[in-house]
Amino acid sequence: MPPDAARRSDRSRRAILVAALELVEAVGYARLTIEAVAARAGVGKQTIYRWWPAKGPLLFDAFVELVPAVPDAVITHDLVGDLVVELRDAVVELEDRRFDQVCRALVHEGRADLVALLLMPRRVVLEERLRVARRVGEVRADADLEAAAELLLGALYQRWLLRSAPLTREYADSVVGLVMRALRP
Amino acid sequence: MPPDAARRSDRSRRAILVAALELVEAVGYARLTIEAVAARAGVGKQTIYRWWPAKGPLLFDAFVELVPAVPDAVITHDLVGDLVVELRDAVVELEDRRFDQVCRALVHEGRADLVALLLMPRRVVLEERLRVARRVGEVRADADLEAAAELLLGALYQRWLLRSAPLTREYADSVVGLVMRALRP
Repeated sequence: MPPDAARRSDRSRRAILVAALELVEAVGYARLTIEAVAARAGVGKQTIYRWWPAKGPLLFDAFVELVPAVPDAVITHDLVGDLVVELRDAVVELEDRRFDQVCRALVHEGRADLVALLLMPRRVVLEERLRVARRVGEVRADADLEAAAELLLGALYQRWLLRSAPLTREYADSVVGLVMRALRP
Repeated sequence: MPPDAARRSDRSRRAILVAALELVEAVGYARLTIEAVAARAGVGKQTIYRWWPAKGPLLFDAFVELVPAVPDAVITHDLVGDLVVELRDAVVELEDRRFDQVCRALVHEGRADLVALLLMPRRVVLEERLRVARRVGEVRADADLEAAAELLLGALYQRWLLRSAPLTREYADSVVGLVMRALRP
């Protein structure tokens, strides 16, 4: 592609991703149409279909490229405090309407692989923090840290998925308390 | 309604529910149509729409009325064994294609309230088993049993939702092991 065309193409791509993310926040996934994204981005529908087969993968790319990444693990001398920070951040993320709408839709579309990719960074960060804790003896040597991270996040995801009870900061704190009991030497 | 009409109506209702459940197993939720359910049940489409507004609530009723209920808590002298039985049963349930398809679709349709109703019996059974354990001192007196049940099931639901790793019996066992560590006096 000549440089000018490549620049135009980059601009269109970005405009489409921005439009998709703004629209899913405004109207929700179910009522989001490719037509509306195209109109808002100032491109033709075919331009979108050239790059993405459906709404799900388009929104996935929009997320990955536009929404700030999960920051690295916070590592202070307070393990419980650090875990609480991570879980509270996870709650804030789950309550972001864009995140919520896109994840639910991807689950339904059978693209749980994409949801897993969206959620994975948080789990990696938690495991990393627990690994440091195990190294300094705050977590027992034989603890399965992958399972522990799944336990910490699974509790939140359950409430998010089922809306069975409010997904509060206090709940995040109590999950950390319970799991830490299982992990202490 | 005269007795004959009531009987006919009951028969139609049951035929619709059976057809819906068989079809969702065969073709999945996304490709299930009200037309196909009506044809299979031998009723008109309007008969279905008179009772149900959409696929989600129809399948929810089919589940509740046709799929055997979660049995009462198993209470032996082996707490860990009992919890393992419950969690392994939960794995089997999540892997039932009808259950899987319907739950994912309800999540997407924003009817998490119905998913919660489908999943609730299992949680109640687990809490009941833990309550007995607390009474006899196998679980510490100040343990939050509701949170514990959420932790046990949340771990499974996460893997089910994300398909991030195989949902095995061994995983169910290790979740029980980890959570029991948090609950022992």
